Amino acid sequence: MSKFWSKTVKELTPYKPGEQIQAENLIKLNTNESPYGPSPKALEAIQNANDDALRLYPPPNSDQLKASLAKTYAVEPNQIFVGNGSDEVLAHIFLGLFKQSHPILIPDITYTFYPVYCSLYEIAYQKIPLNASFQIQIDDYLAHPNNGGIIFPNPNAPTGLATPLSEIRRLLDTNTQSVVVIDEAYVDFGCESSVQLVNQYPNLIVTHSFSKSRALAGLRVGYAIANAELVEGLERVKNSFNSYPLGRLAQVGATAAVLDTEHLASTVKKIQNTREQLILDLSQLGFITLTSEANFVFTTHVSKNAEDIYTELRKRNILIRYFNLPRINNYLRITVGTDAECAKLIAALKEILA
Amino acid sequence: MSKFWSKTVKELTPYKPGEQIQAENLIKLNTNESPYGPSPKALEAIQNANDDALRLYPPPNSDQLKASLAKTYAVEPNQIFVGNGSDEVLAHIFLGLFKQSHPILIPDITYTFYPVYCSLYEIAYQKIPLNASFQIQIDDYLAHPNNGGIIFPNPNAPTGLATPLSEIRRLLDTNTQSVVVIDEAYVDFGCESSVQLVNQYPNLIVTHSFSKSRALAGLRVGYAIANAELVEGLERVKNSFNSYPLGRLAQVGATAAVLDTEHLASTVKKIQNTREQLILDLSQLGFITLTSEANFVFTTHVSKNAEDIYTELRKRNILIRYFNLPRINNYLRITVGTDAECAKLIAALKEILA
Repeated sequence: MSKFWSKTVKELTPYKPGEQIQAENLIKLNTNESPYGPSPKALEAIQNANDDALRLYPPPNSDQLKASLAKTYAVEPNQIFVGNGSDEVLAHIFLGLFKQSHPILIPDITYTFYPVYCSLYEIAYQKIPLNASFQIQIDDYLAHPNNGGIIFPNPNAPTGLATPLSEIRRLLDTNTQSVVVIDEAYVDFGCESSVQLVNQYPNLIVTHSFSKSRALAGLRVGYAIANAELVEGLERVKNSFNSYPLGRLAQVGATAAVLDTEHLASTVKKIQNTREQLILDLSQLGFITLTSEANFVFTTHVSKNAEDIYTELRKRNILIRYFNLPRINNYLRITVGTDAECAKLIAALKEILA
Repeated sequence: MSKFWSKTVKELTPYKPGEQIQAENLIKLNTNESPYGPSPKALEAIQNANDDALRLYPPPNSDQLKASLAKTYAVEPNQIFVGNGSDEVLAHIFLGLFKQSHPILIPDITYTFYPVYCSLYEIAYQKIPLNASFQIQIDDYLAHPNNGGIIFPNPNAPTGLATPLSEIRRLLDTNTQSVVVIDEAYVDFGCESSVQLVNQYPNLIVTHSFSKSRALAGLRVGYAIANAELVEGLERVKNSFNSYPLGRLAQVGATAAVLDTEHLASTVKKIQNTREQLILDLSQLGFITLTSEANFVFTTHVSKNAEDIYTELRKRNILIRYFNLPRINNYLRITVGTDAECAKLIAALKEILA
């Protein structure tokens, strides 16, 4: 600790991402990346833009990318906000919309970055427990009408469980005085998107990522869709933080990826099929797995301790995610890899459980 | 304005970057980009990394890039902080080190983003006037010992004037209780760098950009060099904001650019030569130009109004920068382009002044 740090820094507990180990023969099922590459059209667009024009600043407003996203989601370009990964988009939402006089509401089991943003920007929050079967209960949020905002992922992470659109609508019908953020990083793998509600509810923001279904975690692009007034608020924060959050290559690559809807659909289909097989194989080894609408599964074994399984898999060069947190410290989160990777995982688990 | 915006957003006046117009035949001398392309080795490294591995998150700590910067500047890797452009690096410095109980000190004429960061993070600041010849006077800063931090660019922008290293040393010898940031975005074009002082002064941070001398404004990379404890504070902010600020392509491109010291040296030399010719040509047209240690010149005409010149140049598809701000509203900032671009600028000015 340094005497030169601000009070904010001194009190921070930073987020810890899943390990990014660069090792040969590693089966990496710990950070929910796609096992397949991005759209070849994205790679081609990046190659075409990789020239002396990199000397120039990128378009500060990412107009082409916004136009392609707006067309895809049937909204106006001024309803799209883009950022350097959905983590940056979320950070700006916390400062720009969640810094209010009342605490925001988040699930007790969810993306662990949310409380970190709260400490960064000195925002109070209240954890709302999932029910016994790890579902988000909308009534528990409606019980706190004086909130500064509400955020949860759909499907939730690390559970993978979805909240039905009808329930989100019920939340929005009553909770009209604070912003509701539905973090849809994993939405393409199953559950119904709330994007279709943004023109009905002026306090709804939906966030998406290019890091999961579009297989571009290495490019760093995320976005939000909302009412134009909320987007304008986020633009004000962005333009007070960094005029050019997305480089030229990120903008053209993401634009091409959005337009390649076929690649998205076929990749998602493959991952969904592998996921169903993985859940079946796990069940035959004594695992109980929550219904997953994401590109990962959340699972617990009837007798063997989760942390031990994690450690044993690691010894075998298979990396999955274990969270030593209340309620979920006997669960494992496993990214859905290729069929071959999942087969190796199952073989290793058989050995460990034998 | 929306009722859902936080107080912070409602009170913000965002930064306005120079225009990024995409037009044919435009001579763009308004945002201090390099007129030459980046290192061909950077383009090659990007091309080699542009593959299916983009599905994976980038190294969160940018270790290779930090190692190459550390070697170049003869410091340890844990003395290097990297970010999504030096604007992001500066933003984290403001929140992590400048959010203190006393106001920070900034020049009255300087990079106009500094007060914007202050409003984003609710940091008080005090403007210290440049002297009559637009120089930073260190004694004027030393007159405020109870400051929350000090920041100025060296060379300063938009003046282009440098502060001698001996003066910066004198500041640091006395101002030991708050962080001093020397923003060296333009340092490669002339003035002496303060990087050589970071191991002597634990409260000194020096920030650099890849957007100017390394001609990679489109890639978005910046960095800071300091004592390891200050860097650790910035890492805590970064890891509470975005785990992966630099994508895979930005990391490999910037690493290759750092290693290509020859390309840097030859580009800088060309720009310095063009700058001297430009200043000479301007003087023959009745302009008085400040001594520039940057890749731009700051100039005023003995009789013709600056804003009128700006407007007339714009009609001729030549874009320069005019700031309608106190003390400098009769000055123009002109980026040093290629010899050919500067010749066209001079020809147009002859026409306008005729």
